[in-house]
Amino acid sequence: MAEGRYAPGDKLPTEAALAARFGVNRHTVRHGLSHLAEEGLVRTRRGSGVFVAATPTDYPIGKRVRFHENLVAAGRRPEKRVLQVELRAATEGEAQALRIATGDPVCAWHGLSLADGQPIASFESVFPRARLPGIDTALAATSSVTEALRRVGVDDYTRASTRLTAVAADATQALHLHLREGDPLLRSTAVNVDDADLPVEYGRTWFAGDRVTLTL
Amino acid sequence: MAEGRYAPGDKLPTEAALAARFGVNRHTVRHGLSHLAEEGLVRTRRGSGVFVAATPTDYPIGKRVRFHENLVAAGRRPEKRVLQVELRAATEGEAQALRIATGDPVCAWHGLSLADGQPIASFESVFPRARLPGIDTALAATSSVTEALRRVGVDDYTRASTRLTAVAADATQALHLHLREGDPLLRSTAVNVDDADLPVEYGRTWFAGDRVTLTL
Repeated sequence: MAEGRYAPGDKLPTEAALAARFGVNRHTVRHGLSHLAEEGLVRTRRGSGVFVAATPTDYPIGKRVRFHENLVAAGRRPEKRVLQVELRAATEGEAQALRIATGDPVCAWHGLSLADGQPIASFESVFPRARLPGIDTALAATSSVTEALRRVGVDDYTRASTRLTAVAADATQALHLHLREGDPLLRSTAVNVDDADLPVEYGRTWFAGDRVTLTL
Repeated sequence: MAEGRYAPGDKLPTEAALAARFGVNRHTVRHGLSHLAEEGLVRTRRGSGVFVAATPTDYPIGKRVRFHENLVAAGRRPEKRVLQVELRAATEGEAQALRIATGDPVCAWHGLSLADGQPIASFESVFPRARLPGIDTALAATSSVTEALRRVGVDDYTRASTRLTAVAADATQALHLHLREGDPLLRSTAVNVDDADLPVEYGRTWFAGDRVTLTL
């Protein structure tokens, strides 16, 4: 691993293979692997083997949360991949968060956030269309929320609230994030407001637990 | 559920039983259950069935984080159960967080945090013994960190940093938190400092993902 022969995500040889390779018994190998796991360098997946762990990306959560800036600050290359754009009616929960009426038109944006080409989170962002005329076109033209909001006149926005919990990845999330169904995800639910304190984005993000550490 | 016949954690009857009970087909039952799951009222455990979800406790994370106050504010009855107190040498990571030397004496405190009698988190808190003479005795006499620190002269403390990620419960955590091995936990790693900015506590908390929502 230190020499780069095993990269993050790679599976290590079996205990038996490592024992034979280094001429030690399996107890010694198990002890060594458990030491590496405690240091966070490898992770064990029950029934699958031992894998090289990725260095988690630090992701600051505060009044100003910016995906692009956050990743650049962590020394990672940010990328957003939009999977789906939906024009539809707001659900009850979305309406409440955005302070609009249930059924009002929203633009919902689904996609993946990547760091150095590796998916670190999936997201769903919902924007109020009546409050932000032109947001559909702006979102279609750029994969940056900051830039899309700027194009419709929102020069700055801040985080009004963030709610965090841990959930298990469903089949779709597992597929998108290259995880296994049931793997732990950190789910963030957030509302961003403009400088008049009006909600401009209601976003949910599911971070891969082994790839991101939120910092406060 | 609305009538209180099924409490949080209870398993609902099978799809077949519900279909028979209400005289509808299983497709209708499945549709109804998936609607309840979307609203967060039930959760499905693959291979085990459908369970009534608990209302998650809101837990504010900011400059002042106080377990007791947080739970009372959420309308819950707080309780701490100390499982183990260790007097030992600081590990490298603990020493770095507490700004002491590796091997310096620390008091490590393991236990469970409960809300209304239900475990919501397990914790490990590490205190620097040389900086806080008498902390061992104070912690043995009270299960409140705030009160123990006050007894050794720390009248106030604030959160210097919090790091959050999602991890899978190991066998011990699952046992303590009444979860299944592999269930998602939200792990918080935090340093509390006194008013001279010196670290007085390095704590890690593993919150049961389905019982706690951290709010910022």
